[in-house]
Order: sequence, then C-alpha cells, then structure tokens
Amino acid sequence: MKTFYTAGHTAHVPQEEFEAGRMTPAVEVPARVETVRRRIAERKLGPIVEPTDYGLAPALRVHNSEFVAFLQTAHARWAQDHPGVDAIPSVFAPQITGQRRREVMARDSTSARLGQYCFDTGTPITQGSWSAAAAAVNIALSAAQAVRLGDAAAFALARPPGHHASTTQFGGYCYLNNIAIAAQFLTDTGARCAIIDVDYHHGNGTQEIFYARDDVLFVSLHADPAFAYPVYWGFADEIGRARGEGFNLNLPLPIATNWQGYREALAAASARIRSFSPDILLVSLGLDTFALDPICRFQLQSEDYLRLGATLAELRKPTVFVFEGGYNLEHLAENTVNVLEGFAAA
Amino acid sequence: MKTFYTAGHTAHVPQEEFEAGRMTPAVEVPARVETVRRRIAERKLGPIVEPTDYGLAPALRVHNSEFVAFLQTAHARWAQDHPGVDAIPSVFAPQITGQRRREVMARDSTSARLGQYCFDTGTPITQGSWSAAAAAVNIALSAAQAVRLGDAAAFALARPPGHHASTTQFGGYCYLNNIAIAAQFLTDTGARCAIIDVDYHHGNGTQEIFYARDDVLFVSLHADPAFAYPVYWGFADEIGRARGEGFNLNLPLPIATNWQGYREALAAASARIRSFSPDILLVSLGLDTFALDPICRFQLQSEDYLRLGATLAELRKPTVFVFEGGYNLEHLAENTVNVLEGFAAA
Repeated sequence: MKTFYTAGHTAHVPQEEFEAGRMTPAVEVPARVETVRRRIAERKLGPIVEPTDYGLAPALRVHNSEFVAFLQTAHARWAQDHPGVDAIPSVFAPQITGQRRREVMARDSTSARLGQYCFDTGTPITQGSWSAAAAAVNIALSAAQAVRLGDAAAFALARPPGHHASTTQFGGYCYLNNIAIAAQFLTDTGARCAIIDVDYHHGNGTQEIFYARDDVLFVSLHADPAFAYPVYWGFADEIGRARGEGFNLNLPLPIATNWQGYREALAAASARIRSFSPDILLVSLGLDTFALDPICRFQLQSEDYLRLGATLAELRKPTVFVFEGGYNLEHLAENTVNVLEGFAAA
Repeated sequence: MKTFYTAGHTAHVPQEEFEAGRMTPAVEVPARVETVRRRIAERKLGPIVEPTDYGLAPALRVHNSEFVAFLQTAHARWAQDHPGVDAIPSVFAPQITGQRRREVMARDSTSARLGQYCFDTGTPITQGSWSAAAAAVNIALSAAQAVRLGDAAAFALARPPGHHASTTQFGGYCYLNNIAIAAQFLTDTGARCAIIDVDYHHGNGTQEIFYARDDVLFVSLHADPAFAYPVYWGFADEIGRARGEGFNLNLPLPIATNWQGYREALAAASARIRSFSPDILLVSLGLDTFALDPICRFQLQSEDYLRLGATLAELRKPTVFVFEGGYNLEHLAENTVNVLEGFAAA
C-alpha cells in the first residue's frame, strides 16, 4: 500500500487552543504525522510517495470560493493587527444570516469574517496553515488517484485533518475537508463513493458537504455529541435531507465504548455501505478512539485496530484511507499501522 | 442625585478573557464600581442607596425565559465537568436555526447551550455572575423607579454591565440588559422612553431588544464596528425594522474620535431624541471613550465628560443613568462623576 506524505505539513504548528474555559497546548502537532511516517517505513508497509499538486480546483468543488480565499489570506491580514499571535476568533454571530450576513461579510473586517467562517476556538490559523492545508488536500487527492488507477488501497498521511471543515466553515483542527474533496474528485470521474468516518469525533464537515446528496454515502461512528465535540452535530436523527435523505448514517456511541460496542456499530455501518454498493470506499481514519487518547473517552486497545482494519477489508472495496485525529503520540503510530496492516492482511 | 449601589456586584469576579487570540486579564472587575462609589461619596453627589428587589419578572419582559433559566444554572452545571474554571464557550453553531436549534437546545448539553446563548469568549460565567447580574438589574430598576416617582435624575451604579445582552444571548461582559429592562419597566407604566448609549461599544443587545418597536427609541454613539467590537452590529444602516424602522439610530465614529467629532454626533443624537419627545431619557453610560482607556481607541479627555453631562441635561428630561463600560481604573471615577456633575450643574 502506498502512503502519500509531504513534509509540507510541518509548516502548520499551532501552539495553543482555547477549550473548556482555558488555554491548553495544541494536540494536533507535526509529531503526529512524523511518528506514523517513521513506523510505516520501519514496518515496510509500502512506498512513501510525495503527492501531486492538483491546484485549487478540486477544493473549490466542495468549498465556497470566498471561504477558501479567506483561508488563503487570513493570517497575513490578521498579523497586521496582531503580530506574533495566531488567528482565533473571539466574537461569533450565530444570529446573522441571509442578506444581512452577506452585507456584514462584504465589509473588510478580519475579526468579523473569522467569527463567521470558524465555529470554534481550537483551530488557530498560523502562518503555515494554508500551505499545509493545501498540501493535505493534494495528499488525499493523490491517494484517491492511486486507487482510481488500480491500487487496492492507499493511505493519505495528511494533516491538518479535514472532516470537521464544511462548505463555509473551518474548526476542529480542520481547514479544508481532505476526504470530501477526494470523494468529490472520484465522484467527478464517475466513481460511486462511500465514506466511513471512524474518528472519535463526528465528521460534521463531511456530513454537511454531502447532506443533500444521494451520490455519496456518509456513515460515521463517533462519540455521542450529547457529551462530545462537536456538540451540535452527529445525532442519530441527522439522516440527510431532500435527495440525500437516507444517505447519511450517524452511529453515536456512549462514553467508554470498547471494541465490543464498537464492533456492533461497525457491523451496522458495513451493512449500510454494502447496500449502497460503492465503487470506492474512503475512510476518515481517526485513532482518537484509543483508550489512552489524551482528549477522548473511548476504550479501544491497540490490537482492536487490527480488527478494525480487517473489518474494513471485508467490504472488499478499493479503499482510500485519509488520516484524521488521534493524539496519543506514544501509541498513534502503532494504532494507525495496525489498521493498515489489519486491512492488508485480511 | 441618588446613586443606587449594592456590594452584591463583588460576587462577580471574572479572571481572564480570551480575546484577539490569547488570554488577557479581565478588565470588567469589581474595582470599577468601587472606585466610582468612593468618589461619589467624596464629592457628596447625593445619597448612595441600596436597590429594591424586583424579582425576575421585569427581566423576563425583555429576555427569553429559557435563556434566563440557563444563566441561573449554567455555572453549577458547568462546574460539574470543569471544577475551578469559569464557563466560557469554545464551540459555536452559527448555522443552526429554527426547528433544528430548538431540538439541539432541548438536549442536555451545557457546552452546546453555552455556545448558542453566548456570542463571544470574553464573558465568563463565574460562580457569582448570576447573583451579581440580578442585583445589577435591581439597581437599574430602582433608579428608574426613583425617576418615575419624581427625581430629576438617578444613577444606577451597576455591574456587570448590560447593553450587549440581547433577548437570547449574553456577551461583551454583559448577562442581563439592565437598561433595556429598566426602559421596559418604565414603558409598562406608560412612560415614553428614549435610550442614548454613549459607551464606546455599540449596544447591540439594547438595539436587538427594541429593534422592531416604535415605542422605545434607541440612539447609540460608538466606535465603528468595522474596526471595533462587537464587529457584527452598530452600522449606520441598522435603522430598525417593521414598526421600529426609524427608531434605531446608530452613529458609528472613527478611530481617535475626540470631543469635536463626538459633539457633532451628540448633536445629531439629541436632535433625534427631541423629535421623539420622550417622557424619560435613559443613558447607557460607558466611560471607555476616554483617551487613556486600556481597550478602546477614542480620545475624549476628562473635562469632556463635564460637557457630555451638560449636553444631556440640555434635553431637559428626567434621566436615568445606567453604568456600562470604562476600564481605566485611575480615571474612571473622575470621568463618571464629571458626567453626573456636568448634568446636575447645567
């Protein structure tokens, strides 16, 4: 299995986030990808390949163009007023919609745009965020292209992650939605795509992007938003709308879910994917379901990730793995590679 | 002139706020009111009087009852999960509205409610915030009642401030909208009320509460939201809606506005108030227009506050002053009392 990787991600180095009433050290850090890359090399999982540059067009197939333009320029604009500080919004405007929102956004206020284009205080725009986010998109697209051209599977070792980024908003450590852009890219070539999101957190961005569509299936296993981030999205009654009704399956799980509980949800997810019968499966591969993850509350063990990989392999589809969350730096590489090896061995 | 005051405000002691990408020490602190109280006593401005308790009914005339219930219980609920940390939201959901919002809010998530009921990260709910906010409302109501019963003027020395709090949201150091509750209380007794807001920041909460009404006039002089908090509200084209069209006057002013520029805007505000012909004038008295205010960018001098008081007196209306912002602790008392003495001497 090819792994797509570029050192470009190291341009994105968030320092701190504001969460639960206080500043905490950033957990979505360059060491995450570097430790996984090293283990992939050690385990001789397959070649580690630089991505191809696809330009911005594929990202603009799923994201609003003004939102993308904002991401590109936000740090430079912010830095004029706030030198040396990463851009994080502190004023939000939930009640501004429609024409009024368009008028406000047309005004030249970085603070106002930031609080509209972002939904949390954990996702700083640093000097290197844009270049890293754009590189992560190319990684996901390159992995998708490898599978499209015949590889049985490929791994997009991308960061920053993507699954919380929606059409017009970033958040949850995500700026551009890598997996959604890859799925759209494949869809545009005529492939029927299903996305399964096994990150601890609900992939609200991916859900939003495909919510009214029946051509891309989105299935997510995640911590119940009643107690977990992103708190507003991921409930079981979010089933899609219009043509998309029935093409969005959320499987929220309780605190302390272990492999036994996870396996049952995974079986339900697999059944829905089989009935959808995709040409290609894309996996939002978060490893923050791990028992020792520092910010999450599930109880999966390292050997369970072998089982997760094997279960995904049972779907017998060309598969694009796209890296998402997972913050225990000591075990992240082992757990990630376990999924890929469990998949390859099945 | 009577000053209404209670030591109850000292229960509200925010420590820090998250603003412009970093934590900064709170500026809306108990010393603000205490220094003003001392100077009022020294200058023998008039009696300092404890407020009467009006209960919650007047606040519920302008605020949503579920929002008020949330404010009452938020700290206790938050503290179960986050002991020792003040409640500040870190996830916001601008795009959730209507029926979906009602469903999300019906779920029992303090984090989700916090990010819906609050629009910024500068307004921590501390253990004593509710009791202090409720006391501040009683102060504003007591001052309003004194004027209603014949006093020429009264000063509500209240904190936390109120003018950023809307029907269903808190923010900007404000929880309950003291002046809006007082204006509604007076309106309910048959008095025609005009509110003039001279705080540096736009009084978005007061504006929102009366935006569709023609029975209460709202006029605000403030820093242009194109560069100043609250960034989404306070533009000149916000003129009211439906019956309220023409009864909301925003006078945004540029960086470094001094008395000359301020006086002109004040003349326009006074003209509109005269044409409305209120029975009672209420003043959102912020002193953060001061040249040495640590968080603001106007250039008013201490002697200008005498002129501001005198100009307000020229309207020749029974007047309720309600304390809002102002963060230069060295000069806040002098500037506040200058307004009141300038008013009384005119």
